[in-house]
Amino acid sequence: MTQISTLGEFGLIDHLTHGLTPRNASTLRSVGDDCAVVQYTTDAADPRRVLLTTDMLMEGIHFDLTYTPLKHLGYKAAVVNFSDVYAMNGTPRQLLVSLAVGRRTQVEHLEALYEGIRLACEKYGVDLVGGDTTSSLTGLALSLTCVGEAEASDIVYRSGAKDTDLLCVSGNLGAAYFGLQLMEREKRIFQSQKADNETAAQPDFSGREYLIERLLKPEARRDVVEALRQAGLHPTAMMDISDGLSSEAMHICKQSGVGCRIYEDRIPVDYQTAVTAEEFNMNVYTAALNGGEDYELLFTLPLTDHERVEQIPDVKVIGYITRPELGQKLVTKDGSEFDLKAQGWNPLRGED
Amino acid sequence: MTQISTLGEFGLIDHLTHGLTPRNASTLRSVGDDCAVVQYTTDAADPRRVLLTTDMLMEGIHFDLTYTPLKHLGYKAAVVNFSDVYAMNGTPRQLLVSLAVGRRTQVEHLEALYEGIRLACEKYGVDLVGGDTTSSLTGLALSLTCVGEAEASDIVYRSGAKDTDLLCVSGNLGAAYFGLQLMEREKRIFQSQKADNETAAQPDFSGREYLIERLLKPEARRDVVEALRQAGLHPTAMMDISDGLSSEAMHICKQSGVGCRIYEDRIPVDYQTAVTAEEFNMNVYTAALNGGEDYELLFTLPLTDHERVEQIPDVKVIGYITRPELGQKLVTKDGSEFDLKAQGWNPLRGED
Repeated sequence: MTQISTLGEFGLIDHLTHGLTPRNASTLRSVGDDCAVVQYTTDAADPRRVLLTTDMLMEGIHFDLTYTPLKHLGYKAAVVNFSDVYAMNGTPRQLLVSLAVGRRTQVEHLEALYEGIRLACEKYGVDLVGGDTTSSLTGLALSLTCVGEAEASDIVYRSGAKDTDLLCVSGNLGAAYFGLQLMEREKRIFQSQKADNETAAQPDFSGREYLIERLLKPEARRDVVEALRQAGLHPTAMMDISDGLSSEAMHICKQSGVGCRIYEDRIPVDYQTAVTAEEFNMNVYTAALNGGEDYELLFTLPLTDHERVEQIPDVKVIGYITRPELGQKLVTKDGSEFDLKAQGWNPLRGED
Repeated sequence: MTQISTLGEFGLIDHLTHGLTPRNASTLRSVGDDCAVVQYTTDAADPRRVLLTTDMLMEGIHFDLTYTPLKHLGYKAAVVNFSDVYAMNGTPRQLLVSLAVGRRTQVEHLEALYEGIRLACEKYGVDLVGGDTTSSLTGLALSLTCVGEAEASDIVYRSGAKDTDLLCVSGNLGAAYFGLQLMEREKRIFQSQKADNETAAQPDFSGREYLIERLLKPEARRDVVEALRQAGLHPTAMMDISDGLSSEAMHICKQSGVGCRIYEDRIPVDYQTAVTAEEFNMNVYTAALNGGEDYELLFTLPLTDHERVEQIPDVKVIGYITRPELGQKLVTKDGSEFDLKAQGWNPLRGED
């Protein structure tokens, strides 16, 4: 028997889905990007496309209900699906929500969860159109599927990056990772106080609210996709950062058949992230490269767009695309080069 | 706090999804049928429609791996989704598969699961286009989403049944229920033999193969949908029987605003089902009405189609639709009338 950890999540998916040949004319793009792409028009020349993406969230793996309010969980579960659609340069339109709930779950819990889902749908203009509700022997399981739309010529895949392209990222990275570290530390303190029969102190996150918010209530970067469109900028490749910048940059390189250089000192990091990294005695760039759950956009643009991309708020050029033989490299402040590594969060690595 | 069991699955779904108003022109039909219906065409007059359905299957709730081979589980998980698309008179085209696996799951287990999924996709002409693969702290969780297509005028909803319509069912009912009873009985015998340190006898299902197959490897009734189409018969309402005939007939009545009469002696039952019911000292019609997991089609046709529907192989008229004030009734062999009850399998009833 073969351990799943020997293949990893993406190796496993490759292994299980190899040799799939689409049978239907409506199937345009299958496994391997943020979304699958299908077409449902009578006129084959109609450019309207449908984007499909799905995410599964398991209690104890993806979320810890001791510090995750159900309303936030619902919001986040919806938003991370929308993020996949924006990462294809599309617009999310419909959401299907399946959940399996343990015996102790009450109606009020699900009301809170749905309140968060509805809030996200309202904010992003998405319709909740269906799902499935069932029981679980143990914890809460959530599976969301989002349907989006795009014109064929607007869709951005992971595979279009070209030598000399600019590598860009939105917002800042590593914040959700330190939000998680703070929450996990408070949980340990709370548990040890409880074990000692002390009165548990209310955790104080003042000055760290941004990190907690990035963990518990992330947003999808619709604003960035819209700003690029308005500026007439069309990314050559794009994906959202869920598993960490390093891992995602490697996906774009692999699927585009290119290499890249990322300059460490150009990686955007928030002030709270930097302060908290120091407090935890960690390199902030390691967290920014590998932390994950940022839901920022990583994309490439032709070199000639350099001046125009500098005008886009909250977007930063962090490096460029190279010929494949130059590898996938991180350039540190002192000019040293290191191979990028996909140390990002991997639910199948079996560490949990 | 409110127990979920006080609302039941459908009450809960109503409760959580009330007041949803679609924001997008592409959303045509939302929660409440076998599939949601959306449209993704540039020309609003284009009749091509997209059908969306999703199902979640949890270990210990929906399947027992002690007697469910993973290949069969994969096949069944895919087929029950296809069945929802056929129940709208559509054709399934794409499938998204998400799974969460426990620590002890090996690559070979997932290969077997995917082998079943691929087999179902091949048989029904569906493309596997994506999904999500992650970990679970405990058992296996599966969530499948199927995308199908139909012309607008072909789609059959649950809400179109009219007074005097014929109520029809495909195949036969109750077989999967007795397949499950046989498996559960063998499991108990095996466990008690193990506890007594006896050599476990190989279970003998000879003469009951059909029941086991209906449980472990059900099929979607594409053939029936095609036969109706070829005969020029267009159901006024349709759904697939997953929770039991009684419960599903009540759904059609509720959503169509009608009543119905089902004649017990017209309910189709296989010989093996009848024999096994006797062996278990159960009323075979109770199992046929409430067993569930039949994945047969329940549909209504105008009374004028009576002669033509009698020509369709493997379809039986089991009753008719009435005005709503006449209620939803079962007519037994001796002419007594009873209210139909939704005793079908309900994963949220909390019996497990």
